[in-house]
Order: sequence, then structure tokens, then C-alpha cells
Amino acid sequence: MGRTIAVIGGGAAGASAAARARRLDPQARVVLFERGPMITHAPCGIPYAVAGIVKGHEYLQTYTPEEFSRDRNIEVYTNSEVTQIDVGSRTLTALVQGSARRFSWDRLVIATGAKPFIPPVNGVDLKGILTVRLPPDTPQLKEELSVAKTVAIVGSGYIGVEMAEAMLHLGKKVLIFEAFDRPLPQMLDNDVARIVAEEMTLKGADLHLNEKVVEFRGKDHVEYVVTERGEYKVDKVVLAVGVRPDTTLARDIGVRLGETGAIYVDEYMETSVPDIFAAGDAAETVHRVTGMRVWVPLAPPANKMGQVAGANAVKARSIRFPGVTGTSITKFFDLYIAKTGLNENEANRLGVKTRAALIRARSTAGYYPGGSPVYVKMIVDSDERVIGVQAVGHDKAVAGYIDAAAVLVERRATIEDVFFSDLSYMPATAPVWHPLIVAARVLSQGRF
Amino acid sequence: MGRTIAVIGGGAAGASAAARARRLDPQARVVLFERGPMITHAPCGIPYAVAGIVKGHEYLQTYTPEEFSRDRNIEVYTNSEVTQIDVGSRTLTALVQGSARRFSWDRLVIATGAKPFIPPVNGVDLKGILTVRLPPDTPQLKEELSVAKTVAIVGSGYIGVEMAEAMLHLGKKVLIFEAFDRPLPQMLDNDVARIVAEEMTLKGADLHLNEKVVEFRGKDHVEYVVTERGEYKVDKVVLAVGVRPDTTLARDIGVRLGETGAIYVDEYMETSVPDIFAAGDAAETVHRVTGMRVWVPLAPPANKMGQVAGANAVKARSIRFPGVTGTSITKFFDLYIAKTGLNENEANRLGVKTRAALIRARSTAGYYPGGSPVYVKMIVDSDERVIGVQAVGHDKAVAGYIDAAAVLVERRATIEDVFFSDLSYMPATAPVWHPLIVAARVLSQGRF
Repeated sequence: MGRTIAVIGGGAAGASAAARARRLDPQARVVLFERGPMITHAPCGIPYAVAGIVKGHEYLQTYTPEEFSRDRNIEVYTNSEVTQIDVGSRTLTALVQGSARRFSWDRLVIATGAKPFIPPVNGVDLKGILTVRLPPDTPQLKEELSVAKTVAIVGSGYIGVEMAEAMLHLGKKVLIFEAFDRPLPQMLDNDVARIVAEEMTLKGADLHLNEKVVEFRGKDHVEYVVTERGEYKVDKVVLAVGVRPDTTLARDIGVRLGETGAIYVDEYMETSVPDIFAAGDAAETVHRVTGMRVWVPLAPPANKMGQVAGANAVKARSIRFPGVTGTSITKFFDLYIAKTGLNENEANRLGVKTRAALIRARSTAGYYPGGSPVYVKMIVDSDERVIGVQAVGHDKAVAGYIDAAAVLVERRATIEDVFFSDLSYMPATAPVWHPLIVAARVLSQGRF
Repeated sequence: MGRTIAVIGGGAAGASAAARARRLDPQARVVLFERGPMITHAPCGIPYAVAGIVKGHEYLQTYTPEEFSRDRNIEVYTNSEVTQIDVGSRTLTALVQGSARRFSWDRLVIATGAKPFIPPVNGVDLKGILTVRLPPDTPQLKEELSVAKTVAIVGSGYIGVEMAEAMLHLGKKVLIFEAFDRPLPQMLDNDVARIVAEEMTLKGADLHLNEKVVEFRGKDHVEYVVTERGEYKVDKVVLAVGVRPDTTLARDIGVRLGETGAIYVDEYMETSVPDIFAAGDAAETVHRVTGMRVWVPLAPPANKMGQVAGANAVKARSIRFPGVTGTSITKFFDLYIAKTGLNENEANRLGVKTRAALIRARSTAGYYPGGSPVYVKMIVDSDERVIGVQAVGHDKAVAGYIDAAAVLVERRATIEDVFFSDLSYMPATAPVWHPLIVAARVLSQGRF
């Protein structure tokens, strides 16, 4: 028997790391620990399972633990929490379905993920205040929310926006409280966020911007959300004010945390402790535009970081993770909302001098039926390189715009490069001047 | 009064050139000649106007001649054919609505477009054999086809595929004759074209591959399509075996034609004759992957070539057209079909050693409703640079895949670059491993 690769966490990053290690080292023993009952799970699907759009939370996984274990020859321990790691002896202790067991390891991958941030306000521990974390929590979430007539969503990041859709879909009265002046405040600039805010109001959400929640009130169960401006009677609360990396285990053994609060890793996903790797939502990475360290807890980078960690765990420094471009996408009903690179707020905070254009276009040729307005905001630096794009519209085409934009940003394209990109056109799929090209033209200030 | 910029042809390239010249030189006289009644027209919409999906051919234009003339201060002559150009005296003669008039010019832009290729087979001049060229032809096309029960489409390029959809949409019996072994033979490789062929059959088209039409028979009006293998009773024929650049005027004055048969231009859109430019479907350009001269008669490059020609006509050599990447997209009902870069046939004809992967993925997360299978074929050269992508699927997402792929190809991305591209993901818009990334992974042969 060869080396033992132990992976803590069975989500996107952990499962990718385990699968990769197995593939590259058929002799190794690969052991995967997951606190919950599911692995390769998809938390991104929870709002749709709560809404009933996805039939059950059991669909929110790519493989069952049994399939994953059998097809890949990986020891999978579900409902198994790793409680202690010993770096000196290269062992760990896990509560495997209740009983403590010791495992040795040669390489360790920490993929413990993220957990909801619980703001320190009075009453936050009342019953009826819910968070969205992992697919197995769905049935309880669904049951609790099913009896509610009025639901408050605190926070309007992705999870807040998606849970607001789910609640409206189920016919509930929805109040959204956002401390910033716009929804999706980390993702969008004001001008773009305004389009989202209008849509939220139009679909019946009671959107409270610039309104910070200061307290929850109720006897045993939440009854009121109290803000700086008023108090609101509610039946349930969904707390969606962000997530934090779950770094408890890492911290316990002296693994260095980075400036973002997540585990510091280099481009090989190595932590500060030899032979210990980290990947996914527990780890930080670098931003490909700024070169700065960032924490981006999203599934696609988690999968790739997991692959890189798993590969380097069995074949040292064989592959590098180049970082993230800051791409993300969400939707509110059929309004698709996407971003890549930096927004103006982010750029300006870093002191990057920017110019931006926000254009309105159509998702199809003007004469073709079924098209709808789409909005693209393009941001360039002083070299006219595209450093960020935001796109919003009632058309899935928005996802394609942002994917093309992500590649343009990653590959240091200028607005002239964008203008001459040979993007596709036919009446049913785009206007003849693609919205990205229109934005680049506007930014050229008449040069093309 | 300043210089005179004369533009021949009011389609995408000509109108772009005229508008650009006007914008960059407010003093110039800008004169635009168009043979037909419409300018800034969109021939790509004709099949949808014939099908009745677009309400009338009058919608297939961005501006009326009056608007374009008034808003831009451009002299627009419609129904006006330029019959003769005199290079020595820098004049031209146009039949302006029937009467010959002479105009002088300082810079000339030839944007005479393309015309359907008429194959030299017996009976091709019979009545009832129709071609698809410009929006004003639509009413007659529509009327002729309205009485037909059985329509033969000869050729299965974009126009053939789109007219087949239109005819099936109108409830007609449709026979398609294609001399090659696959539909869209210039665009697609066999393995991808097979998916399109299956769909055409499924939707009721009678698809005859490897079957060359050798004759049309009938007294006065076509009655039979005769092929190498049989004869078929038909009511009408749509001839869609390709187009050719309309170079008559250019040739008359000794403008050099390129190896593709279209007008030779350099990156500034200058022809071989000083102060004469060409743009759009009448001109050839270079392929950004191969550097070779190609002729790609499509609207997006035509618009950009027109812009470049118009700009350089008033401000010599101020902007370059970098060429095309070979991006194109069409659809057959809701099957979207797109390509960028080289296909394997093209690459192999050029002696480029390739590897390719054809993968099947889904347009959404597996558990999210409404997703459908999508197919992506990725082709790399021996340096593992992506030189081409083809994508097919019952989802408009295909357009987004090809736009991202076009940028990847243009910007010389390797499969490792593709794998690490930060493409967007949410359950409703993509699988967590984006289809382009899956294709890159397969091509890595286990390396990532």
C-alpha cells in the first residue's frame, strides 16, 4: 500500500481533491471525511429545492457516497467529523458516526468550506432565524418556511436574492433588509444594482435598502425584525449576511491564515505547514486582475483548487492554480445578473483609475421576437484594458456575455481587442453589434 | 466643402463606412449608393420574414434611407446603381432612379456585397427556382413559396438550414439536397454535423446527403429536381449552394482580386488602387488563426470592415482590421449551431496536426429543470493551443460558449488556460464544470 491522502470535507473542493489524488496515484490510500451525510453536494441548489423547483435536496449531489467510494476506490466517511489533527505524528482523529477513530496520513487536504456569518445582534439566536448552508438542511428549512406568511431576508447577496425569489415563488410576503444602498452590494456597482432593485420591487419584494438590522425580538421564536428605522412583524427570518471560511481545524494546528481570514495557500494550494494543503471555500487565493489575495467562496474555483491540491498532494508542485477573476452569476426569477473582474467600487478602493460605460442593448436582433433589454457595464483601466464587466438582463445570454468577458479580462484585452473580437451573431441570439462590442465602442470615445 | 467620400453599397459594410467617414470628417461630402430600395438591411432575417416569425421585410433594416440621410447628413441614393467608375478623373456614373448622373469622389469605398451562386446545371433558369439575397426580395419569395406544397432546398449551408426551418414552419414538405456527406459542410466536422442531421430528420426534413443535383426539369416552371440518384417532384426550389463576392465593378477598374476571388485589401481595407477601399462581403480578409487570406461573408466582420474602411478613407491608415476568427452561428428550430476558429477539416487541409475532443454536457446543473444536452468539440494544435470550437445544443447558451471560445482562440489560449478560465456558474445557466472546461480536461488526457 502506498501513501495515505486524507481529505477533510466532501464538498466541491474536497471531493475534487480526493478524486484527483486517486486518479494520479492508483497505489495511494485516499480517505475522505465529511461531517454531513452527503458529499459532492451543491449548496447552490438549496434555494431551488426550498422553492420546489428542484424536487428534493437528494438531487443536490453529483454522486452518492457509495458511488463515489465504489467507483473511485476512495474510503468515504460521512457523518464523520475530524476533531483533531496531529501534525507531528501525521495522524488525525475523526468521530466516525459517533466513535472516535484514528487515521494516519502522509498528505492532508483541508477543504472544510464556509459557514454562514451570524451577526452579533440581540436575538439572533431566537428560533425561526434560519441560515442556508448545506443540502441536508433543506427539509428542515423547507418545513419551517412552509408555515410562514411573512419572511424577512436579511442581506441581499446571492443567497439573499435567491432565497427572496424562492419565498416569492411560494407566495409569501417578503421583506429584504440590506445595510448597503443597493442589492448585491459586493457584486454590483450602484448603476447596475438599481436595475436589480427595480426588478425586486416589481416582483413584489419589499426592499429596504440602507437599513441595518439591529435586533430580533420575540419570546422564544422570532416575531420582529428591528432596524435602525422601524420594526417589522415577521414569521421567519433568513439570515444571509455572508459566509466565513471554516478555519477552526486549520487554526488549531497553526496553519497560517491569510489577510482575508481564510487559509493562506500558495499557487500549489500548499499551506504554511508542510504536506498540508487547503482548497475551496476554506482557502484564499489571488485575484488575476489585481494580484492581491482574495477570498471567493464559489463552486467553480473550489473545484479547480481541489483538483490542484489533490494533484500536488500526490505529485509535488505539478500544477498551479492561477487564481480567480471574480466571476459570479445569480438570478432573480428570469433576471440574470453576472459580473467578472473588478467592479468600479473595488477598483476605486484599490486606487485604480477607471473609466466605465453602462450600455443598454437587446438580446436579439431588433426585429427578432422574444428579445429583451440587456445591460452591460464595462470598466477599463488607464491602459484601456478591460478590468471588469457587469451584465444584467432578462435573458440567459447574460451568462455568455460574462464568460466571454471573463476570458477578455483574464487575457488582458483592450477595448480595441474587444471591438475586433469575432463574436457570434444571428438574429435569434444577438444583435449584429454584440453588447460587449457596443460597450467597447462607447469607451473608445469615438475612436472606433 | 471638403472631400467627397463615395460609398457603393448600402448594406452592413457600406452604411458603416459612410457613417464612420461622416463622424470622423464633419466637413466631407458623403455619398452612398444602393442598388435596391433599402439600406442598413439585414439579409440574415429573410428566412424569419418568409416564415412569418418576423412580421414583414420592412423590419429588416436598422434605418430607413431618410433617417440615415437626415440624422447623419449623408446623401443617400437608393434604387441607384453605379454603372461605371473612372479612376483617372475620380468620377463615377450612377443610374439614379433611372437617369445617369455623374459624381466626383476623393475616396471610394466599394461595398457591393455578395450574390447567390447559381450552379451551371441544366434547367437552373426555370421559374420557381428561387434564391435568397436581400430583404426587398422577401415579398416575392414569400408569395411564390406560399403556393408550394413541396419545396426542395438545394444546399445546406446557413441559408439552406434556415430556409428549411422556415418551410417546415409553414407546414411544407421539405427535401434537402446536399452534395457533401453532412449538413453545414463548410462549418462543421462530420461528428458534429451528425447531430444536426438527426435533428433535421426528426423535424421532418427529407435530408439527402451525398446527393448532388444535376438538373432541374419542367416546362416553364420547375417540376423535378434530378440528382445523381433519382428525380423528385417538387413545387418550388430554393437554391442555397453558397454566395460569391460581387466584384464586377472592382474588376472593371482593375482592382486586384485576391486568391479567394474577393477584392484584395490590406489591413486598412485599401485595395490595390490608391484611395479606393473595399469592405464587407465583396472583400477578403485574413484568418486570425492561420494568417491566411479568407473570404467570410458575414454581417459582424462586414460592419467592422466598413468602419475601418470609412475611418481610413478620411484619416489615412488610422485603424487596422485584424481579420476574422471564423465565428458563425445558425439554428434549426431550437437547435443552435455555432463554430469559431478552424474545424478539423480546415485544419487538416492546411496540414495542421490536431487533436480534438467532442464532449456531451448539459446546459444547466444536472438537477435544475429545463436543461438540455449540449455538445462541444474543441480542437487544439500541437502546442495545445485551442484553434477551434464547435458547439451544438437545444439551448441559446451555445452562443455564449462560442463567444467565450472565440476570445480564447483569438487570444491564443492553451487548454490549461481554458481549464483555469473563471467561467460563470449557477444552477440555471451552466453545469459547475463548464462545457468548455470539460472539453479542455478531456484534451489534457488526465493531466488536469
